Amino acid sequence: MCPFINDDFVLQNETAKKLYNSFAKDLPIIDYHCHIIPEEIAKNVQFTNISDIWFAGDHYKWRLMRAAGIDEKYITGSATPKEKFMAWAKVIGKAFGSPLYHWNCLELARYFGIYEPLTEKNAEDIWNKTTALMTEYPEKFTSRALITNSNVELLCTTDDPIDSLEWHKLIASDDSFKPVVLPSFRPDKILDIEKKDYKEYIAKLSAVCGFEIKTLDNLIKAVDARIDYFNSVGCKIADHGFEKLLYEDATKDEVAVIFEKGLENELSFEELSKFKAYILVHCATRYNELDWTMQYHFGCIRDVNKKRFDTMGVNCGCDSISGAYDFVTPLSRTLSKLSETDSLPRTILYSLNPNDNTVIDTLIGCFQCGDKAVRVQHGSAWWFNDNLDGMVNQMKSLATQSYFPGFVGMLTDSRSFLSYTRHEYFRRILCNLLGEQIEKGYFPYDEDILKDIVESICYKNAKALF
Amino acid sequence: MCPFINDDFVLQNETAKKLYNSFAKDLPIIDYHCHIIPEEIAKNVQFTNISDIWFAGDHYKWRLMRAAGIDEKYITGSATPKEKFMAWAKVIGKAFGSPLYHWNCLELARYFGIYEPLTEKNAEDIWNKTTALMTEYPEKFTSRALITNSNVELLCTTDDPIDSLEWHKLIASDDSFKPVVLPSFRPDKILDIEKKDYKEYIAKLSAVCGFEIKTLDNLIKAVDARIDYFNSVGCKIADHGFEKLLYEDATKDEVAVIFEKGLENELSFEELSKFKAYILVHCATRYNELDWTMQYHFGCIRDVNKKRFDTMGVNCGCDSISGAYDFVTPLSRTLSKLSETDSLPRTILYSLNPNDNTVIDTLIGCFQCGDKAVRVQHGSAWWFNDNLDGMVNQMKSLATQSYFPGFVGMLTDSRSFLSYTRHEYFRRILCNLLGEQIEKGYFPYDEDILKDIVESICYKNAKALF
Amino acid sequence: MCPFINDDFVLQNETAKKLYNSFAKDLPIIDYHCHIIPEEIAKNVQFTNISDIWFAGDHYKWRLMRAAGIDEKYITGSATPKEKFMAWAKVIGKAFGSPLYHWNCLELARYFGIYEPLTEKNAEDIWNKTTALMTEYPEKFTSRALITNSNVELLCTTDDPIDSLEWHKLIASDDSFKPVVLPSFRPDKILDIEKKDYKEYIAKLSAVCGFEIKTLDNLIKAVDARIDYFNSVGCKIADHGFEKLLYEDATKDEVAVIFEKGLENELSFEELSKFKAYILVHCATRYNELDWTMQYHFGCIRDVNKKRFDTMGVNCGCDSISGAYDFVTPLSRTLSKLSETDSLPRTILYSLNPNDNTVIDTLIGCFQCGDKAVRVQHGSAWWFNDNLDGMVNQMKSLATQSYFPGFVGMLTDSRSFLSYTRHEYFRRILCNLLGEQIEKGYFPYDEDILKDIVESICYKNAKALF
Repeated sequence: MCPFINDDFVLQNETAKKLYNSFAKDLPIIDYHCHIIPEEIAKNVQFTNISDIWFAGDHYKWRLMRAAGIDEKYITGSATPKEKFMAWAKVIGKAFGSPLYHWNCLELARYFGIYEPLTEKNAEDIWNKTTALMTEYPEKFTSRALITNSNVELLCTTDDPIDSLEWHKLIASDDSFKPVVLPSFRPDKILDIEKKDYKEYIAKLSAVCGFEIKTLDNLIKAVDARIDYFNSVGCKIADHGFEKLLYEDATKDEVAVIFEKGLENELSFEELSKFKAYILVHCATRYNELDWTMQYHFGCIRDVNKKRFDTMGVNCGCDSISGAYDFVTPLSRTLSKLSETDSLPRTILYSLNPNDNTVIDTLIGCFQCGDKAVRVQHGSAWWFNDNLDGMVNQMKSLATQSYFPGFVGMLTDSRSFLSYTRHEYFRRILCNLLGEQIEKGYFPYDEDILKDIVESICYKNAKALF
Repeated sequence: MCPFINDDFVLQNETAKKLYNSFAKDLPIIDYHCHIIPEEIAKNVQFTNISDIWFAGDHYKWRLMRAAGIDEKYITGSATPKEKFMAWAKVIGKAFGSPLYHWNCLELARYFGIYEPLTEKNAEDIWNKTTALMTEYPEKFTSRALITNSNVELLCTTDDPIDSLEWHKLIASDDSFKPVVLPSFRPDKILDIEKKDYKEYIAKLSAVCGFEIKTLDNLIKAVDARIDYFNSVGCKIADHGFEKLLYEDATKDEVAVIFEKGLENELSFEELSKFKAYILVHCATRYNELDWTMQYHFGCIRDVNKKRFDTMGVNCGCDSISGAYDFVTPLSRTLSKLSETDSLPRTILYSLNPNDNTVIDTLIGCFQCGDKAVRVQHGSAWWFNDNLDGMVNQMKSLATQSYFPGFVGMLTDSRSFLSYTRHEYFRRILCNLLGEQIEKGYFPYDEDILKDIVESICYKNAKALF
Repeated sequence: MCPFINDDFVLQNETAKKLYNSFAKDLPIIDYHCHIIPEEIAKNVQFTNISDIWFAGDHYKWRLMRAAGIDEKYITGSATPKEKFMAWAKVIGKAFGSPLYHWNCLELARYFGIYEPLTEKNAEDIWNKTTALMTEYPEKFTSRALITNSNVELLCTTDDPIDSLEWHKLIASDDSFKPVVLPSFRPDKILDIEKKDYKEYIAKLSAVCGFEIKTLDNLIKAVDARIDYFNSVGCKIADHGFEKLLYEDATKDEVAVIFEKGLENELSFEELSKFKAYILVHCATRYNELDWTMQYHFGCIRDVNKKRFDTMGVNCGCDSISGAYDFVTPLSRTLSKLSETDSLPRTILYSLNPNDNTVIDTLIGCFQCGDKAVRVQHGSAWWFNDNLDGMVNQMKSLATQSYFPGFVGMLTDSRSFLSYTRHEYFRRILCNLLGEQIEKGYFPYDEDILKDIVESICYKNAKALF
């Protein structure tokens, strides 16, 4: 009998198989957005059991286990790694339709040579096999080995502007580790003036910059200094997260007053919109000058379960797609403002709400201009959408509304060293989509063109950002 | 030639057929939310022609006939039962893509042994056949016989808190009728303080409770009394309908003032939010103590056609999916508030807007906790979504974002005694979805696991609520 | 090898092929909404190269080329027709998934006998072939020949109320041209009192009407006069575009004050809502009296790229789906108001946002009444949705929620004389959908019924509007 993870996994027709095997399979990985902790690469962390790789920080798994009625003890609690693994096996074995099911299977196959799905029945066996492997070949289960063996050519972590980037420098200085590890500039804390700890954060930024930040001029000076510093360490990409996209035009003088007020007092919605828009436009303009790429992540409401937030903090699995609001107006005004001064950087938009796919795909079409292929991108299906249907829907909408061969493709957005299999999953889904449409007679089989499309989306377009 | 309704209806592949026939087909029905009138069960109503079962109150059919240009006379008007049937036949015979087409076919097949679709051509024949059957075997066409022969084990009606539940008691006292018929507690009229007849309703509630309700304390006392009374008659489930979900924190003292004001005057949006949130949280807390399940129905705008409302009243087929607004914030705050005090009951959320599927599926993931499997459910595709694509989309989204084997499954939401065939329809669609994914290699064929999934979703999970 | 455009294009099964070839293929075209310039028909414009037909005003193509990184010179700039064609070939040849790909292929096939897709490789060849054809048979490449040879029976242009309709009269007076060309009444400029050039427009309307318009009474008189004039030239259909749907009840006296104020000053949101609702209801009432059909186009945000708007003006490819807002309330109130006085005309609703499909389909069900089959229609997938998936989704939703055989079907919404192939595309997609559902056993193969459905949707329902 054919193992569950076999050569044709996801590939439902001959064209898909051919495309995947000929053009997609062996391409290196450019993972241009993830949450890997650079320290863990620098220190070449050793993993000794599969639970340590699987459960630390993986709120996807936590949510599935909670939904299935597993006690928190076996999720984030005091249970042993093996107990957690056994609880997980019970859940995942029946998780029909969950992307975690496929991710799990691919991870077992690619890193442990186990081609059958994990179930309650074979859990003991698989625990023993994986542990034995990790004991016998510890060198294969370090952070660096996992990255290297996954054929990763380059990855971008996500970093605070005040970060010293010391781990990045350390990694870069070690010639024995081939993959390139670059920081991303994520200045949310500089924009989020409404947050309680804003003043505290600005103090830290002051300390890092070596000058006081009490005026807008100094804030801008600090932002520029940190962008320049990140740039000097090789950064080529920024990332912004938004609870709500806001935009209001304002003069510099207005914003200067707002900033000083905001350090001490609560701001109105209009003031917040003016401040955030001003800083965002400033950042974007600078990114464009440095030929960076800029990412926008939106459509998410975070930490909605107060009790759990109070006990476990952020990223504990209590985030959701946010409710309806008009993000098109502020976003289009931002992009328009930047276009007016030819300052629009290469831009990638991600919404957590799959209903936004076509909206985004029509919006980006308004801001393309010919000197950069697909200047404004619709990023790969994000987070809750990073699954079979989610990726197909994002790609079909994008292909329908925009220029598909220019799509910048997949990223993991993950902090796990096993998540690179998601690139394989994406490539299989991409090739299956292409094959399906070709076999229906919706696109011709022209090998040169298809090779170019597959390679561009799986590797070349992302590579071109760096 | 194969009849239209045959053993393989909906089942597009061998795995689907096997799953349906082996595990789904013969399971009893738990119809945990419907609008059957308990009096009609208690009195064991006799039906003598198919029109009387089909057209009374069935606004689905009314809408389709109106769209097809049928005169209101033949819909809700003065035409004879046979005339209405003939008008209906003309419409349904061409209603490609309508769920009513399949419902109609299944009802003719299962209750009348007619396996061909009704059309204008065979309408006279089918009228004669069904009438003859109902004349020859009247005992098969009573409300009770239809329920019993549909393999219904338990059903829940939808009842006003002021209802005496006398019919429920009568039904329960008759041992000859096996299916269990329980009430649901639907206290919308207690929360909807903005409605014109609120004060009048509170007067009725007073009368039922035997004490005056002029203060919040007494309102709460009345709510508790009615919940306890419903509980004493076997109620295990509540249902709340929302034109708009609202939530604002408030102290009891604030709400006490709002209630007294609201009995006489119009309330502000903020006051309404505080009042409704307070009562809702109170109810939910009590449901949780009693281990009831709580349902939320939202996303609907009702009675939008004033002329028809003025002449025909509510439920005449003039309701629609409502417009965009942020329901995530008030809903998540409600669930969070209840979670804070460990008072979140088993909860089922239904939105009329299919765009809300993934939003709901990510939101519920924030509030699961291990002591109850899938504490917060996304209910089966509701009303306008209760069709082939709608059910598939709801299930695919749910399976992707949550734990599919925990899904509480199908309900009819109907007031017709023929609607139990919708459970058959649902089960076929479920098995087809499973089979399709399995045959594509997305989930393995493991009979123990699949049996458990099918039985859980079709029967066991709903059964566990009672 | 089978050419890319072959008899079975889009038709994935035998039933689909049979339905298309037997019932759909040869039906005449009723293109009841387009943006063809009537002057170009009256003057029987001669085209001498394919670029002149393809690139003038086709912002779909412009957007795709910009996304692919083509310099604006080759899009709307100074490049020669051939240079533009060569740039286009490079882009379209790889545009997997774009509807432009199929449109392009169908246009080459039906008007030039070229059955292979245009690519960078064959671009020179195809340029030469098409140019040679257009040189050798110039009589086939005039506006009138293209319309006639496309089997167009009737088309409706989109016209300003102040238009003299002289070209329409000229066309009508020429018996040698068989297709009927009618105007549509598009009075957006009369409603958009918030626009800068409103007063100027009202002055033009005054001039055309021959009396001053300073009061609401005179505005209404002008509206009625122009509707009557359009009616006298054969107009049977109106079209309204909305940036945002607004509705607020108001007395005539209130609106009279608002109009006079609005001619000189900015209006509040409430005043705008009252004015627009009043005029809209007035227009709709008049349309109904004349048995016209009324179209609503909404869900669009226009000219979002300021720089491009400042340099290129409107319709340059910088429009997008608009952000979330509640359109259901104002739209349902409008339809309800009209229903109250039995003044609701035959109505067709189009939203640019595909998420609105099911919402619209449930809303229209509230306003159907039996004297006109499908009085309120959900129009064919519009603009960014006018593609394979978009059309399938619109039709599946419509079929599920409404009465599919009553669907008014396809229109091009185009200003190109080659776009009639989109009717072919639509018909293939329709027949494929029917065939697919029939082969799955979801609808029976009854030739009489299917013939009626296909002919009604492709031709008869649209024909019945005129």
